[in-house]
Amino acid sequence: MIGIFDSGFGGLTVMKEYLKKYPDFDYVYLGDQANMPYGSRSTELVNKLVVQNVDFLTKQGCKLIIVACNTASADALRHVQSIYKGKLVILGVLIPAAEEALRSTRLGQIGVIGTRGTIQSGAYERELKKYESDLYKPKDKRALNKVKIIEKACPLLVPLVEEGMIKTTVTRMMLKTYLRPLKHAHVDTLILGCTHYPLLQKEIERMMGRQVVVISSAKAAADAIEDYFKRHPDLEKSLSKKGKRIYYTTDCPERFGDLGSRFLGERIKGEKVEI
Amino acid sequence: MIGIFDSGFGGLTVMKEYLKKYPDFDYVYLGDQANMPYGSRSTELVNKLVVQNVDFLTKQGCKLIIVACNTASADALRHVQSIYKGKLVILGVLIPAAEEALRSTRLGQIGVIGTRGTIQSGAYERELKKYESDLYKPKDKRALNKVKIIEKACPLLVPLVEEGMIKTTVTRMMLKTYLRPLKHAHVDTLILGCTHYPLLQKEIERMMGRQVVVISSAKAAADAIEDYFKRHPDLEKSLSKKGKRIYYTTDCPERFGDLGSRFLGERIKGEKVEI
Repeated sequence: MIGIFDSGFGGLTVMKEYLKKYPDFDYVYLGDQANMPYGSRSTELVNKLVVQNVDFLTKQGCKLIIVACNTASADALRHVQSIYKGKLVILGVLIPAAEEALRSTRLGQIGVIGTRGTIQSGAYERELKKYESDLYKPKDKRALNKVKIIEKACPLLVPLVEEGMIKTTVTRMMLKTYLRPLKHAHVDTLILGCTHYPLLQKEIERMMGRQVVVISSAKAAADAIEDYFKRHPDLEKSLSKKGKRIYYTTDCPERFGDLGSRFLGERIKGEKVEI
Repeated sequence: MIGIFDSGFGGLTVMKEYLKKYPDFDYVYLGDQANMPYGSRSTELVNKLVVQNVDFLTKQGCKLIIVACNTASADALRHVQSIYKGKLVILGVLIPAAEEALRSTRLGQIGVIGTRGTIQSGAYERELKKYESDLYKPKDKRALNKVKIIEKACPLLVPLVEEGMIKTTVTRMMLKTYLRPLKHAHVDTLILGCTHYPLLQKEIERMMGRQVVVISSAKAAADAIEDYFKRHPDLEKSLSKKGKRIYYTTDCPERFGDLGSRFLGERIKGEKVEI
């Protein structure tokens, strides 16, 4: 069983990418709606919530758990990995996106957008710098020797997406404001560092222009697992494959069903659990 | 000691009105930031959180507690009042606003805006209907015999206010969208059924026009206490009066200080507590 969790609905964009690539695995999704949004919580609190979620998913029989939330990956991944070391594989969405950006950037100018929590944590900058020497290859004579990272917190995008206001003037205006410093800095690669943002990806791509590669942390996470399975074939073999899909939420199943279906792109029902 | 609580910062607009009226009382404010926002949570969960908060404030020695959040007042006031019956006075912000609207309306056409939680609860409609026969007096020959209530959930206003985007085009556009059905229905009185909205009151008044009376649930709650004290002088006498003000938050004190100061209109510091 693969466990995927997020503070609410965003993680379903990660689940969607997993289902495209690996439709046969058994999945259990947990949306911790009772404690959403993680994006504006303290690191301390996010750590506590992430441990709770992983605990719950372990009890459901998960052997591989995906922290499908950038804020949670930024704040708590290493913490929770150290707790479950040797017992469980826990992966985040942040490192795969950072790695893909380093491989993709032509000039070394990488933009990152995310919640306030993710940006303030500095986790993207940290991971980009960490893997830079291995993965960044300048592809143009104008390219920088060292990558330059421009980050921008976009706190209103999550509520706008959750209100279904994808194609509205207000969302376009907010995107324009948020993306302006990234355009001015001439980023050539932009990381969507929040699992809500794939729903705005087309609009963001249109605004940034064709020359900018937009990287979804949701898709990057699903792509990265292929490589992980190659290096750990035993893990892949040990995962059950009956095409089961279970959805749990820690609050209001009606809202989970309505919003979740939009994020996943197919009709789902969530069962309420206390964790 | 008077206890005032909210899911975060909104309740500070209520505290502000109390401090104007009764600066000498001792106050303890609790912002349950770790569980904000209440506006999109299930009734069941809001009930649980409200009991936790009241419990905490009781332990601080509060004899009068104000549920300074419309969602919490709508979902949980009666529940928590029944638990503490005879031991503690617990008042909300919803009934005072409903009563003031009924007294004020000229034509009987009352609008209510609030979070999704408050509007979906139907609590304003219920309270307005309950006190209608006592308080509503038609003041014009065009006035309706029975009040007509037009409600509108405005889920984006809380994040916009919390981002400090008070005087922006985006907020104006959202307000225009949200207020349109209320203008079309020719409401003559509009209840701001969320304690975040006083920060938008001027803009809302401008948009609704001079003929519409805008009622802040924060101010109505503070006004109502005067009457309550007249009927219960013993309660007023029993409250300590040293001008003490203590602010607690259940998460991130930095954010509480920054945002809270904006809501209260004076610089405050919050102390973090586990409840």
